[in-house]
Amino acid sequence: MSNASDVYKNAIVFDGLNICNWSRDIFESWHKGGFTGVSATCGLWENFRDSIHNVIAWNKHFEDNSDLILQIRSTEDIRRAKREGKTGVLLSWQNTSGIEDRADFLQIFRDLGVLKMQLTYNTQNYSGAGYLELKDGGLTGFGREVVDEMARVGIVCDLSHVGPQTSADVIEYAKAPPCFSHVLPAGMKDHKRNKSDELVKACGARGGIIGLSQFGPFMQHGNDSTIDHYVEAIDYMIDLAGEDNVGLGTDASEGHARPSTFMEWCNHDKGYARQLTPFGHDKVVKPLGPLAERPPLAEAMSRAGWSDEKMIKVLGENWMRYLKQIWGA
Amino acid sequence: MSNASDVYKNAIVFDGLNICNWSRDIFESWHKGGFTGVSATCGLWENFRDSIHNVIAWNKHFEDNSDLILQIRSTEDIRRAKREGKTGVLLSWQNTSGIEDRADFLQIFRDLGVLKMQLTYNTQNYSGAGYLELKDGGLTGFGREVVDEMARVGIVCDLSHVGPQTSADVIEYAKAPPCFSHVLPAGMKDHKRNKSDELVKACGARGGIIGLSQFGPFMQHGNDSTIDHYVEAIDYMIDLAGEDNVGLGTDASEGHARPSTFMEWCNHDKGYARQLTPFGHDKVVKPLGPLAERPPLAEAMSRAGWSDEKMIKVLGENWMRYLKQIWGA
Repeated sequence: MSNASDVYKNAIVFDGLNICNWSRDIFESWHKGGFTGVSATCGLWENFRDSIHNVIAWNKHFEDNSDLILQIRSTEDIRRAKREGKTGVLLSWQNTSGIEDRADFLQIFRDLGVLKMQLTYNTQNYSGAGYLELKDGGLTGFGREVVDEMARVGIVCDLSHVGPQTSADVIEYAKAPPCFSHVLPAGMKDHKRNKSDELVKACGARGGIIGLSQFGPFMQHGNDSTIDHYVEAIDYMIDLAGEDNVGLGTDASEGHARPSTFMEWCNHDKGYARQLTPFGHDKVVKPLGPLAERPPLAEAMSRAGWSDEKMIKVLGENWMRYLKQIWGA
Repeated sequence: MSNASDVYKNAIVFDGLNICNWSRDIFESWHKGGFTGVSATCGLWENFRDSIHNVIAWNKHFEDNSDLILQIRSTEDIRRAKREGKTGVLLSWQNTSGIEDRADFLQIFRDLGVLKMQLTYNTQNYSGAGYLELKDGGLTGFGREVVDEMARVGIVCDLSHVGPQTSADVIEYAKAPPCFSHVLPAGMKDHKRNKSDELVKACGARGGIIGLSQFGPFMQHGNDSTIDHYVEAIDYMIDLAGEDNVGLGTDASEGHARPSTFMEWCNHDKGYARQLTPFGHDKVVKPLGPLAERPPLAEAMSRAGWSDEKMIKVLGENWMRYLKQIWGA
C-alpha cells in the first residue's frame, strides 16, 4: 500500500455538499485542503429572482478568483481543475424553490450551470415533502414532472433533506438515479434526518450515490465523534449500497457562526416562518476539522485498512462516474 | 306563504362562487338575475405579480361599471348593494398561489379586498393537497401558519377543491370556521370532487357554510339534472349541516366556451403542466340556466315546500352571517 497522503494528493477529491460563507478565504481553504471539486449550495429558500441573483454572485466569484476556482459544467471540468491545481465548483440548490411553479425553468438553470438540486428542503413544496414536514404525502404529480424534466435536461436529483416517503417514491419513479449527497445512516444513530438502511440500499441499487456528512449531532458518538468514526460511517454505508455508490458530502459550513442570521434563515421554513430545528443554536462538532486540513481523512481510511483503490473511489471517482451518468459528459 | 318571486326579489341573494368571463355583459346578467352579491374568482394559478394584475383589472371593472357593481369589503357593502340595486362583488381566489411562499402577503391582499381564498386548487401547494393530488398528506406546517394568518386578518378559507385529508385537518385546526363554497354531496353522487357526509357534517358543526354547486356531471342525475334536483341537493346538505349552514355557490362560468383556452388553463396543473380532468372538453349542463334567469330557483324552493324563512336564509342570509363572523363586519 502506498502512502495515504500520496493517494490523497493524486486523487480526485469531490465533496458532495458545502454550504460555506462564500469568499476567497473559503476558496483558499479548498486549495490547501486538496479539494478537486465541491458541490456549493447557491439556493436554499430563494425564489426565482433571488436564485438568478445567486448565479450572478457566483459569476463574479468565478471572475474574481479564477486563479483558485472554475465552474463545473461536466466531469471533464473536474479533471481540468485537477490538472490546473484549482477547485471546480458545482452550483447546487438544496431546494427547488428557485423554479417556483415552473418545471420549464429547470432548463434555464441547467443552462446557467445549476446542475444539482435537492427536490425540497425540510418542508413541503410543490414536488414533495421535506423530512420535517408534519406528514409526508410522497412525490406529487407535479413532482413527477419535475423529476422527469431534471432527468431530461441532466440535473442531479438530491434527496438528503427530503422526507422518507417522497424519497422512496423518487427512487422508484425517477428515470435517472437520485442521490443522497450529504447524509448519515439511521442504522448507527436513530434520527429522522438520517437515512434508513432500506432507503440507502434502494438508492444504491438504482445506481445512485450516498455522500457522507460529518454533522456530529447525527453521528453515533454525537459531538464526540472522531475522523475514524466518520470512516466507520462510510463503511456502514458501503455495506448497504456497495463500494461504488458511496462518497463524501461533508455539509461543511465554514465561515458561518452559530447562531447567526444565516443559520436562523436556514432553520425557519421559507427563511422566515416557524422555526424548524434547534441546530442554529446548538453546538455542532464536525470531526473532519477545517477545510484546509483534509489529508488526515486519507490517513484514517488507511488506518481502517482501506485499499488505495477504495480510497480513490470514495474520495471522488464514485461521484465522477455518477455525475457523468446524469450529465452525459 | 307569500309569492316565491316576491321573496326572491326582496332577499339578499348571494352566490358563493362564480368564475365567469368577466365583462359588462356578466354584470348586466347579475342585475337581471337579481344577484345581491357574488364571490368572483380573480385567482386560480396566478403567482404574486399576476394576482396583483388581477386586482388592477377589477379596480377598472369597478370604475367602469359603477352603475352595476360595487366592491364588497364587509357585509354592510352587500346590504348597500341591495339598497342601491347593484351587485356586490367579492374578490376571491381559488388557490393561495398568489401569496407564493409568503404568509405575510395575506394581509396585503386582504387590504386590497381579496377576502376569500381557497387553500389550494386541485393539486399540492405549500399549504396542502388538492382533491386531484396523487396522495393527500394533509395540512402542512406552513399551511397551519397560512390558516392562522387568514383567521387573524379576516379572510374566508374555502375548501371546495381541497383534498379530503387536508380539508379534515383544516376543519379541526382552524381558529375560524372554513367553508365549502361550491360543492355537491358525495352521498348523492360518488365523485371525488363531491364532499362526504362526514366532511359536510364537520364543516357545519364548526359553524362553516356549504354552498351548492350546479355542476351537472357531479349531480345525482348528471347532465339530466333539473332545478328541482338542485333544490333536493340543498336539502340533502341541510340534513347534514343544518338549515343555517347551507347556501348557494353555483360555480357559474358564463362567457367561457368549452373547450377554450381558459378551460385548458384551468384544467392543467399550474395552468400549463399535465392535464388534470377532462372537464374542459366534456359537456356540462348547469340546471339553474343563465345568470339572468334566476328567480325560478325560488319557485323550485317553494315547490319543495320551503318556508319563506328557509328560502331567505339559503338564498343569502346564511352567507351574510358567516361572512360577518369571518370579516368582523
